[in-house]
Amino acid sequence: MASEAKKGKASRGALTLKTPKGTRDWSGPDMLLRDQVFNTITDIFKRHGGTPLDTPVFELKEILSGKYGEDSRLIYDLEDQGGELCSLRFDLTVPFARWLAMNNIQQVKRYHLAKVYRRDQPAIARGRLREFHQCDFDIAGTYDPMIPDAETLRIIVEVFEALQVGITIKLNHRKILDGLFAVAGVPADKIRSISSAVDKLDKMAWPDVKKEMVDEKGLPDDVADRVGEYVQHSGTVTEMVEYLGADEKLCANPDIKAGIEDMTLLASYLTALQVIDKITFDLSLARGLDYYTGLIYEVINLPSKTEDKEGKKKNKDDAATQVGSMAAGGRYDNLVGMYGKRTIPCVGVSFGVDRIFTILKARRERENAAKPRGTDVYVMAFGGKDFDGLLLERMSVAQRLWTAGIRAEFSPKVKPKLPQQFKAAEDVPLGVILGQDEMAAGQVRLKMLNQGDDKSEEKDRGKLVSLDDLAQEVKKLLL
Amino acid sequence: MASEAKKGKASRGALTLKTPKGTRDWSGPDMLLRDQVFNTITDIFKRHGGTPLDTPVFELKEILSGKYGEDSRLIYDLEDQGGELCSLRFDLTVPFARWLAMNNIQQVKRYHLAKVYRRDQPAIARGRLREFHQCDFDIAGTYDPMIPDAETLRIIVEVFEALQVGITIKLNHRKILDGLFAVAGVPADKIRSISSAVDKLDKMAWPDVKKEMVDEKGLPDDVADRVGEYVQHSGTVTEMVEYLGADEKLCANPDIKAGIEDMTLLASYLTALQVIDKITFDLSLARGLDYYTGLIYEVINLPSKTEDKEGKKKNKDDAATQVGSMAAGGRYDNLVGMYGKRTIPCVGVSFGVDRIFTILKARRERENAAKPRGTDVYVMAFGGKDFDGLLLERMSVAQRLWTAGIRAEFSPKVKPKLPQQFKAAEDVPLGVILGQDEMAAGQVRLKMLNQGDDKSEEKDRGKLVSLDDLAQEVKKLLL
Repeated sequence: MASEAKKGKASRGALTLKTPKGTRDWSGPDMLLRDQVFNTITDIFKRHGGTPLDTPVFELKEILSGKYGEDSRLIYDLEDQGGELCSLRFDLTVPFARWLAMNNIQQVKRYHLAKVYRRDQPAIARGRLREFHQCDFDIAGTYDPMIPDAETLRIIVEVFEALQVGITIKLNHRKILDGLFAVAGVPADKIRSISSAVDKLDKMAWPDVKKEMVDEKGLPDDVADRVGEYVQHSGTVTEMVEYLGADEKLCANPDIKAGIEDMTLLASYLTALQVIDKITFDLSLARGLDYYTGLIYEVINLPSKTEDKEGKKKNKDDAATQVGSMAAGGRYDNLVGMYGKRTIPCVGVSFGVDRIFTILKARRERENAAKPRGTDVYVMAFGGKDFDGLLLERMSVAQRLWTAGIRAEFSPKVKPKLPQQFKAAEDVPLGVILGQDEMAAGQVRLKMLNQGDDKSEEKDRGKLVSLDDLAQEVKKLLL
Repeated sequence: MASEAKKGKASRGALTLKTPKGTRDWSGPDMLLRDQVFNTITDIFKRHGGTPLDTPVFELKEILSGKYGEDSRLIYDLEDQGGELCSLRFDLTVPFARWLAMNNIQQVKRYHLAKVYRRDQPAIARGRLREFHQCDFDIAGTYDPMIPDAETLRIIVEVFEALQVGITIKLNHRKILDGLFAVAGVPADKIRSISSAVDKLDKMAWPDVKKEMVDEKGLPDDVADRVGEYVQHSGTVTEMVEYLGADEKLCANPDIKAGIEDMTLLASYLTALQVIDKITFDLSLARGLDYYTGLIYEVINLPSKTEDKEGKKKNKDDAATQVGSMAAGGRYDNLVGMYGKRTIPCVGVSFGVDRIFTILKARRERENAAKPRGTDVYVMAFGGKDFDGLLLERMSVAQRLWTAGIRAEFSPKVKPKLPQQFKAAEDVPLGVILGQDEMAAGQVRLKMLNQGDDKSEEKDRGKLVSLDDLAQEVKKLLL
């Protein structure tokens, strides 16, 4: 990613040939891998009844304003060329809320995979660009408690299993967290700022976080200690429900009580959905965004089992491609109410597809895996000194293959040389070889290419196949 | 299309809930149909060895400037918020040329399907929006003459066959057209403006076109008549090559001579590729863009054979959805040279996917075709008065189906009523029905839903299937 974004700069006179700062082109194997990631994820969304939504790349400016706090300065505005004032979308959640309210939709499972725009300082090595992808799945509507929440967590597990990426889902509940703060003695007006300090516990040690709370945010020392005592607990959902339930002071708080009920229900659902073993209930997870009202979660990359087997060296590589959270989300019951007549409860997840891409690309390079290639069959011809290139015949054979839906190419030369043709077919699994005599008999030779053993390859002239059977024979070999 | 774009306007206080002028959301059956069109087309691109390219939605402003003549006023600029000046892409050809030059790519078959932006007056009923799709396939590189041109035409035919849309490809050659103008006596500096008058012959009668040439563009009356005599000819490639070849004055023109050679070669290739019967060589086709240097073509919608059978009424409907050219393109050998050190010859086609969508949507509505639906199986439960809803069991069964890759849903209620569940499963082909007794025996009932005959449906309680066999049995029924 970094190399392609950096190398892409070439001048010609006054004109600088580059993409705008913080953007990149996608092509070749990167693009094929990206599409593969996208298809894997959207297939799973569809499996759960998700329907796709696509919104314009820009929204009316007033739709975005007041939604992103001080990040609003990162919004890209369109120039005022007369008419409406517009801005490029900053995320996919606000367009979703606008669409729900505008069409008065009460219930939907929607997914949206698209680019979003932030005028941030790009950090290309860490995969942070100004134009980047978001991939969101959200369930909107009034349902019985925790059922859509559990399905969302199930979707997360299915996605990473399909991508063969090992994960843990860190989980918390905003009501429990806010209740803990209240019991510890954090003043109501400091809860959100203390919450965002707690959220740094995955990157900073407790003494530093405590320092921030006391010195910067003015929390009394003993209150900070009580917060620290609580939020450094994590474990399975059952363990944590027990821990919270055993503390009378905590149980007396109505928010915590409601949260414990939610978590108990959720645990039974996650067990039925066979994803409970992926979950860690972590009281230090707070999530930055203000709009969450219930469950919150974040997905952390772990070396997968197959990678474990390959030993420690691989794990070190994984650490090098450790790119923060791979997906995150939660319940936000009040956001849509900012646009519509009534609020619509929502729960969702956003996959960091650019980060996932970075991990998979590193794995592919590590494993030296074959790059995905498009063409299945290369149609070639050769002959003696009177050889005319058999172009029309090669076209006609390619036409048969295309008609059968087979991916085929041939040399765009009238009289291509044989080595040229083999070189062009370097990554293609099958060759169809035309000769004057065989064509006269309505036959071609079908040959596996690039089996590694070059000597036998030259001798093996391939299997004679009649033109009428060709497409079928090719399909058999491609299975 | 029109209805969704129009209805989407709802106010809440000061905030107007709408998408910006000339843009729309895509969701529901429209979105599924659009994706279907996109997938059909890109599958065919891949079949021909095409590789995908994706570029940023905005480019440096200087990359776009000077490329679109007076249409440049329709470019969307980003606001100057410090840093580079950028504009939203106006088409996919300029970003392609920039990418080729920047990466010094000499040869590629690339496709690109993305949105482009033009601040034009929207005409929603005719499907003209400010944010719309382009879908381009281009072959760049130096090849033997007419081979990539022929493959591009073959791709066009494959796409519309796959979409079951009847077409004719109108074809012309810039060299022949320019030669005709020269022979008729059009001054060199008037050739492009006379050419664009000729291009109107598909919408205007000859006397009106002539009037434009003579009165507005100052062409002598007899020159206009000679132009008119030539450009009103059309026919098969063979017929037209004969017509041009029989006229000694025309053959003496070196451009026309070269053009006839190209067309003769092309005809042999198109015959080998079995697409010659879709082609009309039409001397009035001129195409607006200046950068074409060789073959030019435009795809016109014709009622398909199946629609023919259904009689005249259907054809009239087709006329109603007649939306201009469905695809167009040609050879442009000098465009990339505007960016790079050396020029790279290119030939390509751009599919009007929004227009294609409009035609297919009208057909779907006419045929009252079943809307594509996502879910394959609805997992439901019912029981007597002690019925607890079997939620965990429904989750566990859905989990089995998801694990097998099957698209499944269940009611997100703890105790859903049976009619509610049947209603939710309205468009779903299969139901899995859970009952207390069957579950105890490790079994469920598998039932075809919505067969039309309601009475028998109630009696038919479905086939008893063991949980272990369920996914396999479902897959058999879904085949």
